[in-house]
Amino acid sequence: MMGSTARAEFRARYWVESFEPLERVAEVIAGEQSSGTFLQLAGESDELRARARARVVSVTPRQQVEQPSLFSEHLQRGRGDAGFTQGEIEIAFPIANVGANLSTLLATVAGNLFELGEVTGLRLLDLDLPDDFIDRFARPQFGIAGTRRLAGVFYGPLIGTIIKPSVGLTPEATAQLVDALCEGGIDFIKDDELMADPPYAPFEARLRAVMPVLQRHAELLGRMPMYAINISGDVDEMRRRHDLVHAAGGSCVMVSVNWTGPAAVESLRRHCELPIHGHRNGWGLFSRSPALGIAFEAYQKIWRLAGVDHLHVNGLRNKFWEPDESVVRSARACLAPWGSALPLMPVFSSGQTALQAAATHARIGCDDLMHLAGGGIIGHPGGIAAGVASMRQAWQAAANGQSLADAARMHPELAAAIAAFGDK
Amino acid sequence: MMGSTARAEFRARYWVESFEPLERVAEVIAGEQSSGTFLQLAGESDELRARARARVVSVTPRQQVEQPSLFSEHLQRGRGDAGFTQGEIEIAFPIANVGANLSTLLATVAGNLFELGEVTGLRLLDLDLPDDFIDRFARPQFGIAGTRRLAGVFYGPLIGTIIKPSVGLTPEATAQLVDALCEGGIDFIKDDELMADPPYAPFEARLRAVMPVLQRHAELLGRMPMYAINISGDVDEMRRRHDLVHAAGGSCVMVSVNWTGPAAVESLRRHCELPIHGHRNGWGLFSRSPALGIAFEAYQKIWRLAGVDHLHVNGLRNKFWEPDESVVRSARACLAPWGSALPLMPVFSSGQTALQAAATHARIGCDDLMHLAGGGIIGHPGGIAAGVASMRQAWQAAANGQSLADAARMHPELAAAIAAFGDK
Repeated sequence: MMGSTARAEFRARYWVESFEPLERVAEVIAGEQSSGTFLQLAGESDELRARARARVVSVTPRQQVEQPSLFSEHLQRGRGDAGFTQGEIEIAFPIANVGANLSTLLATVAGNLFELGEVTGLRLLDLDLPDDFIDRFARPQFGIAGTRRLAGVFYGPLIGTIIKPSVGLTPEATAQLVDALCEGGIDFIKDDELMADPPYAPFEARLRAVMPVLQRHAELLGRMPMYAINISGDVDEMRRRHDLVHAAGGSCVMVSVNWTGPAAVESLRRHCELPIHGHRNGWGLFSRSPALGIAFEAYQKIWRLAGVDHLHVNGLRNKFWEPDESVVRSARACLAPWGSALPLMPVFSSGQTALQAAATHARIGCDDLMHLAGGGIIGHPGGIAAGVASMRQAWQAAANGQSLADAARMHPELAAAIAAFGDK
Repeated sequence: MMGSTARAEFRARYWVESFEPLERVAEVIAGEQSSGTFLQLAGESDELRARARARVVSVTPRQQVEQPSLFSEHLQRGRGDAGFTQGEIEIAFPIANVGANLSTLLATVAGNLFELGEVTGLRLLDLDLPDDFIDRFARPQFGIAGTRRLAGVFYGPLIGTIIKPSVGLTPEATAQLVDALCEGGIDFIKDDELMADPPYAPFEARLRAVMPVLQRHAELLGRMPMYAINISGDVDEMRRRHDLVHAAGGSCVMVSVNWTGPAAVESLRRHCELPIHGHRNGWGLFSRSPALGIAFEAYQKIWRLAGVDHLHVNGLRNKFWEPDESVVRSARACLAPWGSALPLMPVFSSGQTALQAAATHARIGCDDLMHLAGGGIIGHPGGIAAGVASMRQAWQAAANGQSLADAARMHPELAAAIAAFGDK
């Protein structure tokens, strides 16, 4: 901790771009997002400012550019003719300004500052909260160890899949697919994020259809494959659905975190007795512009504070826009210790097959993760069981330092996966 | 409605940029965000697809560009060498895929599609829901007429201000300021979004300090100045705080909509007996990149569905990045009819004084709005009452078609505002 002071603080680090010197931009942000500079209340202002004003911790200019990343109306007033500075700043905010209030914490570190006319780019890179401040938020209840215990999977990644088609399946068709997946030895199943409570497959009907199937396999296996059933809705609906899942013996619930929102997830978490599978759909909006938004390092901390247990990170060689390097950084961020906020189990998905296991193992350095494959399991030429087996074989080979080709000689399922998916 | 079909649909319109023909991009989005194209379930797939698949309504290429707005890993695979097409597409989704579930509606229209590798820019421009689908959401409870009734202000804009400094004031100092503002004839007061329930000014202590002041002025005036007290927190906290405000005779609650989130706002709304003042802090993140995010036309519809009554739109000649044209479009979007989802009362703020009244009146064409000034009221050389009077005088002049200079001859408060703030 630099610059020790008497008051307790949390910090936010940003990438910024401006036509102003970054020192001045940092002061504008510190002012705007704390006591401001607007009003002088007689006799009170100095003491108040000392107590409440945010503090610039560091300013690190990196480079000059000629063109702004984002437009600002201030440019119409002749600003920016001398170019723009990009760099990083860190701001410390008094904890006393906010208290343990997640939405107000976000209003502070990710509020009006994105609209400042002085900046032509602003990205929240990371958050740094003292341990005893972290302790006051909802936080993950199960994390990796709790998830492994409930799933009965103590070694290797949880091999999983997604119910597809995304929408359209009746409760009965869903239950048949779940039956086939359990039969095939799957560890983990999740709903698609587009499927929650549609009229043709109401939540309760899906739950009633699926749970007896899961229970039957649990009796055979001695463990129940974990099914992250999508309970997204308003908070009362989510709590009621959680209670139904829990009463029926289910072991996981899923929510679309961005579109239920931090306060809703936190409110679910404080009621919840099951791991919360966090689906980040919409994440691209928050992060895909390099000059705007929230980096995953900060984003996953928001959801740790809210209390999710698993968070999607995309997958290596995925079908989306995201480079592998970004996926790897996201997964590592989920797995890093952060005070009493348990590490999140990162969820790898999108175009995954047995062929990405070795690289994923090598780059993440552990197997405390979920590896979800759609076509790589359900589309395996040998069927679902062979698809699941091929994924496990590939992970086992990676853990043993064995090449995929060597392992494939002993495992026909893996050999078939390589033949079918090897052009990736 | 184009292309009438038997099934009920809602529509989303996007700006897109891609190295692929936009027709193909539209089909990818329609597939990805509905039944997909991934799995052929024996005997079911054709019927299922006919029922569940989203439909491309229109594709309108606009221009070719050489450089992509956003990076995609697909560009590394040789895509984009022939340039990029920008344009608009419209997609129709079966209502039956989603039902009346706001977070799943958002997962559908604003979910994984932002991450598609085929697009190098994607922005949700607008949403089009059939009236009987709108009816099934929470929706605004008070809107403009309900707000005017509770505030006792039936003509002209609600003239308001923000409690400043943003953070640091004790409950007693807040109550003193509220007293001075009421004394000065204010219609509307809001908390800063950074102030909710900090340790030095807990929510209940603030409420206890402020409400007797408001009650006293209400008895004198025959109407209570509306105070939008910031209740942001988890859903249980927000509901409890709402109940306290309501029981104490308060007439409005404020929430940070982005950082509590759609499901939390909706859950508050279903419990709420007061207008919800929607603070959009963080909005810049959603909208400031022209190649990514959500346009305000769509954004304000999300919050209408969730049930807010007022929504911030920035102000003309504001201190932020946003051009006036964008502010005007936002306010008009709030005021436009949309089925049974009442128009939102747009809230103008940021660097406002009496000097923006005429232009705001001219460009919005009505006065069903809140006009909030900080320095323009509290910093008026004649004090708060003169600041409020100057704002009203300016709006009255605008409504009468009188020039500001003419009006200032009759109104010393307005003349003083022009002298003090006229350099803007």
